[in-house]
Order: sequence, then structure tokens, then C-alpha cells
Amino acid sequence: MNLDVFFTPRSVAVVGASRTPGKVGHDLLANLINAGFPGEIFPINPTTDELLGRRCYPNLDALDREIDLAVVVVPKEAALSAVKESIDAGAKGVVVISSGFREMGNEGLEIEKKMVDICRRRAVRLLGPNCMGIINTEAALNTSFIGRYPEPGSISIFSQSGAICAAMLDLCSSRHLGVAKMISIGNKADINEIDLLSWLAKDEKTKVIIGYLEDISAGDAFVKAAEEAASVKPVIILKAGTTTTGRRAAASHTGVLSATDSAYGAAFKRSGVVRADSFEALFDYAAALALQPLPTGNRVLIVTNAGGPGTIAADAVEKAGMQVAILENRTITFLREKLPRESSITNPIDVLGDAVPERYAAAIEAAQQDPSVDAILVIMTPQTMTQPAETALAIASAIDGSKPVVASFMGGEDVLPGRKHLCAAGLPHYGSPERAVAALRAMYHYSLWKNRPPRQITHFRVNRRRVERIITRRLRTNRLMVGEVKGKDILSAYGFKIPQGAMAITQEEAVEIAERIGYPVALKIVSPNIVHKSDMGGIQLDLSHAEAIEDAYDLMMLKIRKRAPDARIDGIYVEQMIPRGLEVILGMNRDPQFGPMLMFGLGGIFVEVLKDVAFHLAPITEAEAVQMLMSTRSYAMLEGRRGQQGVDINAIAVGLQRISQLTTDFPQITELDINPFIVGDIGTEPIVADVHMTLTKD
Amino acid sequence: MNLDVFFTPRSVAVVGASRTPGKVGHDLLANLINAGFPGEIFPINPTTDELLGRRCYPNLDALDREIDLAVVVVPKEAALSAVKESIDAGAKGVVVISSGFREMGNEGLEIEKKMVDICRRRAVRLLGPNCMGIINTEAALNTSFIGRYPEPGSISIFSQSGAICAAMLDLCSSRHLGVAKMISIGNKADINEIDLLSWLAKDEKTKVIIGYLEDISAGDAFVKAAEEAASVKPVIILKAGTTTTGRRAAASHTGVLSATDSAYGAAFKRSGVVRADSFEALFDYAAALALQPLPTGNRVLIVTNAGGPGTIAADAVEKAGMQVAILENRTITFLREKLPRESSITNPIDVLGDAVPERYAAAIEAAQQDPSVDAILVIMTPQTMTQPAETALAIASAIDGSKPVVASFMGGEDVLPGRKHLCAAGLPHYGSPERAVAALRAMYHYSLWKNRPPRQITHFRVNRRRVERIITRRLRTNRLMVGEVKGKDILSAYGFKIPQGAMAITQEEAVEIAERIGYPVALKIVSPNIVHKSDMGGIQLDLSHAEAIEDAYDLMMLKIRKRAPDARIDGIYVEQMIPRGLEVILGMNRDPQFGPMLMFGLGGIFVEVLKDVAFHLAPITEAEAVQMLMSTRSYAMLEGRRGQQGVDINAIAVGLQRISQLTTDFPQITELDINPFIVGDIGTEPIVADVHMTLTKD
Repeated sequence: MNLDVFFTPRSVAVVGASRTPGKVGHDLLANLINAGFPGEIFPINPTTDELLGRRCYPNLDALDREIDLAVVVVPKEAALSAVKESIDAGAKGVVVISSGFREMGNEGLEIEKKMVDICRRRAVRLLGPNCMGIINTEAALNTSFIGRYPEPGSISIFSQSGAICAAMLDLCSSRHLGVAKMISIGNKADINEIDLLSWLAKDEKTKVIIGYLEDISAGDAFVKAAEEAASVKPVIILKAGTTTTGRRAAASHTGVLSATDSAYGAAFKRSGVVRADSFEALFDYAAALALQPLPTGNRVLIVTNAGGPGTIAADAVEKAGMQVAILENRTITFLREKLPRESSITNPIDVLGDAVPERYAAAIEAAQQDPSVDAILVIMTPQTMTQPAETALAIASAIDGSKPVVASFMGGEDVLPGRKHLCAAGLPHYGSPERAVAALRAMYHYSLWKNRPPRQITHFRVNRRRVERIITRRLRTNRLMVGEVKGKDILSAYGFKIPQGAMAITQEEAVEIAERIGYPVALKIVSPNIVHKSDMGGIQLDLSHAEAIEDAYDLMMLKIRKRAPDARIDGIYVEQMIPRGLEVILGMNRDPQFGPMLMFGLGGIFVEVLKDVAFHLAPITEAEAVQMLMSTRSYAMLEGRRGQQGVDINAIAVGLQRISQLTTDFPQITELDINPFIVGDIGTEPIVADVHMTLTKD
Repeated sequence: MNLDVFFTPRSVAVVGASRTPGKVGHDLLANLINAGFPGEIFPINPTTDELLGRRCYPNLDALDREIDLAVVVVPKEAALSAVKESIDAGAKGVVVISSGFREMGNEGLEIEKKMVDICRRRAVRLLGPNCMGIINTEAALNTSFIGRYPEPGSISIFSQSGAICAAMLDLCSSRHLGVAKMISIGNKADINEIDLLSWLAKDEKTKVIIGYLEDISAGDAFVKAAEEAASVKPVIILKAGTTTTGRRAAASHTGVLSATDSAYGAAFKRSGVVRADSFEALFDYAAALALQPLPTGNRVLIVTNAGGPGTIAADAVEKAGMQVAILENRTITFLREKLPRESSITNPIDVLGDAVPERYAAAIEAAQQDPSVDAILVIMTPQTMTQPAETALAIASAIDGSKPVVASFMGGEDVLPGRKHLCAAGLPHYGSPERAVAALRAMYHYSLWKNRPPRQITHFRVNRRRVERIITRRLRTNRLMVGEVKGKDILSAYGFKIPQGAMAITQEEAVEIAERIGYPVALKIVSPNIVHKSDMGGIQLDLSHAEAIEDAYDLMMLKIRKRAPDARIDGIYVEQMIPRGLEVILGMNRDPQFGPMLMFGLGGIFVEVLKDVAFHLAPITEAEAVQMLMSTRSYAMLEGRRGQQGVDINAIAVGLQRISQLTTDFPQITELDINPFIVGDIGTEPIVADVHMTLTKD
């Protein structure tokens, strides 16, 4: 259903308008009137017939015509009937500002649910409750009670916290950064971030979307909506509550490695969302992305009027994983002509403490001409001869819009006039070179994502029916833990290489199997009650003749009987010994929000001690799988080191893609853990040494 | 030599004073006069007899009395003779503002050296050249040409970049943060950061020292001076040029692991310097440390008028490694009484969007009373009923100075009046909760360092004379690479356990030795030309009878002859096999600035692939050695995991301390690498499996 009515209503009723300044019902009405909304405004209040110069109605019934949008600001007790009456009066959208619902406990949640029910039944959308309202500068619409009405512009803000909306509007106003839409989504009873991402993606006035979120209403839909939005304009999100969420997630059964914040990270990365790590970053990135073109590379040119700040900036560029651009000879020749002899011409370009505005302009012109420069950072410090305002103007007029330019005029009041001119000229300004570089980095990463090759999911030929049969049978008999033997069966059906082997019930059978598949073999206990087989003495390796098998069989039974006397033993699995190789782990955990999340890590200590793992949402492409491997700290282990040969990296990537296909095909698999996956030299096929899966019935 | 004359001269001569506004010689003189300096001011300029209302002298000769301080602003060509004449005129200190010396190349460097020579011979100190001068607000002295003269206060700034001085002064002024001293150290031809740290440590007006550095003049002296200063007041330093320096260092012979930035990190940590990672952090930390008491713990209470910012702050506290304080019951009862029912009483305390100033005051009072709270973060967002100014005043008067309080009023112009009142009341304010938390973290870490237990270096009983003999002989015969055999000799003299063994020249000798020390044994090639023994086939392990030794001997010789036909073979070392254990690396690299830098890492991939190493300057205490181990990501490997027993952590710490003693005793050792050091269960002594050292002649 379309949200247009919230942004461009022809009429707005304020249910619960008030005469008392400082009350929400008053301030909101005043905001609505003061913003210059051209449509009709109907204050509703039973105790008066005029409010702020507008005719006031005792109730919606008394209104003789239909309304488009209702804004409800009555106390929570009256909110439910106000919503009903609004719909009766023809409202196609209702904004409930009133609070005291879900956020106050179960009783409030019940009322909130009723509110949504009523709206859904009547095909009306609801924003809130417990929100601060909506602003649309294009339509001069302000249904919020926030004190600050922004200048019109290209940034749209949605936020789960009204206070963050207010702070962000205030910041935008102070920096003359215009706002297109502001939506305080409150409790998200109906309209949520997904609806808004979709709507704002299509909104022509919105050039950049920024959001503050504490949770996400539906992972799948979020990823889809965010990806669609990010494909046409930058989406920057600050996700708060990461650490406590992380703690909670760690305590849950999914285990430490799949802490929900990893899933958010994977979801944002996948959908092209620029993640802001702090409140300031949210604004900083928005300013750069709203005002400047995207860079086509990561080579930064620094212009400064002093060496120290130039060094600070160069450090920041390198630490951000970007490059200090190396200028072309032509540029250097040009600069030598234009700048004094003492100037440093190599990047950072030092135009010196007594720099006149023209020197800055010359440096920027040169940088814009130079194909080795992708982005420009202009730094100024207040020195005696410095002319901040004039310099800002000269910089602004030198810019041709071909490359992103960001600035940092370091200091306080002395550079303020310059900062103001930069703001007015649409140049993003930052309190320090480091923050300016962070903004360039965000732009660069977004441009990389935007220009990524098309996502091409490989579909492997698999025996899907076989897996379906196994899973169906398991679910029917309620055996949800899938151990090594059946797990290998499933993986084999999806193209994984598994060692040859078979189940034995007696010593004699074990020897027979070994003779058939060939020595050496391993014996592995098969029991639904034993997960960590080796800890229980349930694994015997490298058995190369019949006698060794018999001894190992006896020893294993002895140990198991002692350590797990109650375990049901299904038999002993006799398996070819696996050739040596590098042990890695491939896994999948189904995140409650984002669905199947693939995991990769090197075996043993790399995962257990160093937590050196990478995550990615399924389905995954080949390029993404390779990227995933490369993002681990231990990647060098795969490539080979100190003259050792590397392993078949591509084979691991294929393994991840096959798991991706398997777990996308079978939502019943909630956990999958191939540990270890033995990877050999390039050209050899990796082998599944052990696997464990968990199924679910829903 | 004392620097007092630079800060409290009775008279100042400005050599090169000028009548032209905008020229350094003019602006500096104007600054000096305008600051209200009560002493005598002598402008020196041959072309006029009056400047800015002061009598002007054609040269210093013409002056009929002695001067205290000379400030030289003449062009570089005339600077040397100006310095001479200043000293002749009685100056005890000379500030050379003029530039064009070391920073312009060799010619300039020569003149700079001559300047220093002249000063040293006459026992006169020199500041600069290429600097911006000095400010001492206590004495109303401004010998700088920076436009901004700060309010008097408690922060002192020194900087290798004059522009950073200027920006910092401007920032301080804008935030009403007072400055005690400002010193632009320029080229540091004579006076450097070490002199200033020592002087500022004793300066009563200075409560916090902040510095910007690109290099350090003498590592040892710096650590000593910084430690002494940090013991009495916080020292915050931004060290720039880290990444390029790091790159250079990586290219040098010391290897990637001892990149100079690690040495700076170790030096700052050791000496209690608070390291700022960015220009903003430098100012942010200074404000908190100058204005607020140190916290005694890391439990932070958050007061906010909205949930979102509270969540952001709680995230930041956790990510900073601090704790969200858990309030005592008494506090909760008190708050329930004082705050509205809807308020959240558990930390973060949400005083709600309509919070009157009294609610903030109540929350702060409660937090100050609660012994479970160590620090307080106050957050405000601009909501309709918010009173920023009144709230700031209420907060300021609620504070009793017992615990640090920092604030973040989020937004722009709407909260500005509040920020101004906070500034005026001496409350540090930050643009975001995250930056406020970073400042608290810096305070907490400094307080930890300040309250550290006394440093007690353990002195082990060692055979120093034996090592002296070995090293002397090596140096005499110019054999600077010390291999395994002699290296173990040296370590044994310093109390390390080494496996028994002896050198053999023939197969027969090898067998004889093995029979004596007992099987199994290892054979190792001894050659000054072979460093990576195992790569060359120069190691044979686990030999348990005479025949095995003979075969291994032959095989080894065959391989070596093939792979390193020109290597000089000194013999074969026959050694007891070392029991299994965890392989770690202990090392030392002598940093050109900071001297012996100890290194610890887990063997193999942990160092090679993951670069998971810790550094510390020698000499090291037991507590520091244990801290060093704990700071690696792989520490869990030492503690034991998944039911496995841990290794003897204390034994590793003792090993580090012994290396510390060895490399402090013998500065001739420039590199030492025990790799691997085999560590076993608790109570067993670790064993040196291999060692390599490099000596130097100076």
C-alpha cells in the first residue's frame, strides 16, 4: 500500500489539538501551520471552536468532509477510539504521536495491536505510535512537534528514536544541509523501515537516506528493500544496541560465533548499506554523499597550508585503506609554476602558512585535471595571513564537480567564517582531517558496491530429491540432530566429496568393509548421544590391517562404555583415511532475522581462540565467497606462506556456494557445520571429514 | 639548563620588528604589546625609531642595556648574526622564528648547526628555528605571531607543527578552555619535547600537557621525562607520521614486526602518555583531563532525555571496554521518588523528553552518592520542552566534583546555549556520546597507569662475566651473527634452560656424544652461513640409536652440500630431544630511539600470518611481562582451552624478564630471537629450542 498520503495529504486533522503552548497538541498544530502547509488543517478539540486562528471542531464527526491524514495526539486512553474515528472520517493514513503502548508493557501492546487491526481491516496505514511525526519540506508539511523545521534539501531521515530525528534536524539546520523528508517511526506497529526504504528509494527529492535503527522488522524484506534503495541512492544506517544484543545472542543457543551483530554486518554489506559507527559518522557520511559526486577510486590528494595537518591527513588516508595519490608530472609542472618555491608539491601539497586563496584554487584545479587523483581533501589552519572566508570562496569556485571534495578548516572561531562559506557552497566540512577522510572512505566503499559486477548465483546440479527424502523422514521421526553419516549423505547429494565408508555392527563387518574400501581406514562411533566423538574416545585413525581394526574396535567400546554408559550405539562407521590437508570450517546458522548466514574460518584455534571467522548471507555468489575468504586475517594461510604451496581457494569458495544452495533449498536446516573440511593443493577436491546438522520442524 | 627565561623574561627584544601589518615582524610585536606584557619590549629595526608606540632601536648594539630574551624574525640570511648579536646583548634565551633551515635541505641545516653551536658555547638556549614562538598567559607573554591569544588556564601545548598550535589555541578559545603555556618547537635545533616535558611537569599553572610530535629527539630521555611528567599530570600526545614511518621501518632490516610505531606505542604505554589517535581526540581528552577529576573505576552512569542516545552511549561504553554501572537499590529508590513514573531508572537513566532541569540534577545527585558509579555521562537532545541553557546550569550546580562528569548535548544551534553554559561551568562537552565516552576511557586508562603498583625490576643472579667474554671475543673477531650454539651458551649464563648437547666434527664423535647425553637426540648443522637450518635440511630429529645417527649425518651432509655448497660447516651439534610443548617466540629488537624492545608471540602462524605480537620496552617488570602476554589475541592458547591444561604463563614472563636483563646489560646485542621457546605444563621449566642473536660494534 502506498504511503503518499503521509507525505502529500490534501488535508490534515490534528486530533487532540491544544491551546497550551508546550503541550504536544499545541506545538504540533503550530508547526503544521507555521510550515506553511497549503492544504486544509482541522484542529479537533471539544473545548473550543478556534485554535491558533483556525476553526476547531469538537470531534471528527462534526467535520462535514473527508480528511486525508489524521494526526492523533490524545492521551493513550483515548487513542484507540481516535484512530477509529479518524478512519470513519475518511483518513487514509493515521499518525499516532501518543505514547504509552508497546514500550510500557503488555497492556499497551494489546491496545497497539488493536489499533493495527482496525487500520488493516480498513486498509489504512498507521505511523507510530510513540513517534514524533513526519516532515516533508517539499509539501511544506510538518506534522511533528520538533522545534526545528529544516531547510528543503536532499537528505531524508527515518529513525526509531524521535530524539535522534530532532538532533539530526538541528545538526542539518546548523550546517545548512537541506532535508527532504523526516519520519519518526516510533514503535513501528505498522509502517516500518522497510516500507520507508522502498518509498524513499522512489522519492525524487531524496538523494540520500539516513536511518537510525535498534532492530529490524523483517530481515529478508529489509535486505531486499535496502538493496533496491542503495542501488539508486546511498543509504546510511546507524544500528544501535549492538553490544547488548551481541551479549544476549551470545547467551542463546546459536553460539558466540553467530552473534546477531555479525548478521547485521553481513546484511548491511550485502545490501549496500553504508554502516555508520557513531552518531557523528551518520551525519558526516550523509553530508559527503548528499553534496559530492562519488569517487571512482581511492587515491586522495591533500591540499594544506601546513605540514603537520598534512601528515595527520596522510596517516588517516593510509589507515583508512586508501592511497595518497601520486601526482602526474604535468600536474607537478603546473603547480611549480603557480605556487611559491618553498611549497611542497608532492602530495600532501603544502601551499604554505601565508597562502592566499589563489594558491588553494590552483591546487584544486590541478588536482581536478590529474587523472591520478580520485578525491580531494582541503585543509586549512588559522595562521596570521590566513583568509578563511576568501579561501572558502576561492575553493568553492575552483570546484568543477568532477571529483568529490571535502574540507577541514581546523580550529574554532577563527575559521568559522570559512566553514560557513563552505556550508553555503555545498562543500562538506569536518572538524578534523580524520573525519573528512572517514567520509571519503564511506563514499569510496559505497561506489565500489554500486559498481559491483552483477550478482550471479551459480546453480549446481544436485540430487535435491534425495535430501528431501532424508529430511522428511528425519522430521517425521523427530530425529532433528543429523550426525556424520546422514550428514555426509546429504552433502554428497549436493556434490561434496566424502570419503568412502559404511556402517558396521560387528568387528567382522568392520574388517570386511575395510577390505572392500581399502586400507588404511578410520573407525568412528555412531550415536545420537555423542557429538564430540574424539573427546569420548570414539575415533580411531590410521588402521592398516585387520588386527589393528579389531584392537581399535575393542578399545573404542571400552572407552565409550566407561565415558558414556547410557549412549545408544548405532554402530561403527568404517571410513577411508582422509589425505592430509588444511583444515577449514564451513558452516551455516539460520539467523532469526536474516535467514541462512554462511560462516567460514580456519580450523581449530583460528575459530576457537582467535574468532577469525567471516560471515555472509546466503545465497552467495562466487565473487562474494572469495571475498569472504579474503576478509579473514588468516587468509595468508590459504595462499601459502614461506614458499609453501597454497591450497585450492576456489574449491573452498565452491563449497560455500554449495552450502548456500543447500540451505536455501531446505529452510528446515537451521544449523550446519562441516568441521573439518580438508582442503588440499590446487586441483584436488576438498573432502568433508565431519559434519553435523540440526533440523527444525517449522 | 633552565628554560625560565623563555616564559618569564624581564625584557624581550624583537629582532626584525616591522611596521607592515601582515608581516611576522609586525604581528609578533603587536601580539607582544597587546597581550599586556609588563616587562620591557625592545623592537629592533634599522629603518625607524618608533614602532607601535615603542621606541625602536637600529640594532642590539644601540641598546644601552642587557636583554633577557631575544625573538629573531629577520630573513634567514641574517638570522645567524642576529642570534650572535642577541647573545652579545645579554640574551639568555633566543627564539628563532625565521624559517629556511633544516627543513629546506643541507645548506639550511649547516646554518642551523652553527646557530646551535654559538648558543651552546655561550650557555644560551635556543627555541626553533622555524617556529611560531611562545605564549605564557601567566606572564602575559606572547612572542608568537599567532592571531589568537588564549584565555589563561591550565592546559599547556607544545607542538612540532606551528599550525597545530594555532588550530589548538583557536579551538581552546572557542570552547573557553584556558591555556597556561604554548610552545611551538619548530625544528627542535636545541630545545625539544624532552626539555619541555621536564619544565612543564614542574610548572604549577600547567595541569595538563598536550603535544603534537612527528619524531622524538631521544627515546630514552623522552621516556624518562614523559614518565616523570605523567606521574604528576596527564600528558596527551598525538604522534603523526605513523603510517609512512611504519612503511619505512618495514622496509628496513629490522623487519616488519618491529615497525617503529610499535616502539612509540610501547614507549607511550610505559611512560603513561595518553596517546591521541586524532586531532579531535587530542583536544577532547585534554578538555576532560583538565576540567574533571580522574575516575577511580570504569563504571559509567548515563543520564539521557531519550532512549536512542542512551542506547548509543551504552554501546560506546561497552565497546570502550568500560562498564554500564549497575545502580544500588538505594539509588533506585531515590530516583523513583524524584523522577516521573515513565522514566527508565535502570542505567541509562531516561529522564524523558519533557525533562525539566531538576530531573537532570536529581539523577546526577543520585549518581554522585552511589558508590557503584565511577563516572557520569549526561546526554541531552533538543525536544520541544527541552531547556538547554537551564539544564546546563542545573547540571553544573548539581556537580560536587567527586566524580568526572562529561556531557553531550546532541544537535546544532538548538543546544548551543546549553553547550556554552557547560563550557562556562568547566564541564567538558562533546558533539556525540561516543566522543564523550572516548574521553572517559582516556581518563580511566590514565588513572590506572597513575595508580599502578611501584615498578619493581627483578634482578636475577646470572653469570654476566661469561657473556661478556663471549661477546668481547665475537666483537674482536668480527663475528656479529651469533648462532644456536653460542646463543644457547649466552642464554644459559642468564638462567635459561637449554637442552644438553655438544658439537661433533665426525660421525663417531656424534655417536659418542649421543651415548653420553642419552637418546633420543637431534642433529643440527652449525654454520655461520645457514640461518634457516630446517629449510636447508640441516636438522634431523628423534634419532634413537647409533645407526640412525650415522644415516642422518650422511643425509644431512648430502643435502647441505647440494643446497649450500659454499657454506662453511663448523660441525654438527648433537642435542637431547626436547619434550613436546607449546612453541612461543621471545625476542628483542633494539629500536633506534627507544632501545631494547621486547617481543612476545606464539610460534608459527601466530607471528607470521596473524602478526599477533606484543611489544614492551626493557627493562620490564613481572606485572608488565604478564600484561604483555595477556595483550595478545592468542592469550587463550596459553591459558588452555576446551579442557586442555594451560602452560606455565609465569615461566614465559620470567623468560621475558631474563631477556630484559640480558639486553639491558649488553647494549651490544641488537637483535635476539628465541624461536621456538618450548613451554610446558605449569611447574616445568621452558626450554630454548633455538636462538639467534646479532651483535653490533658501537
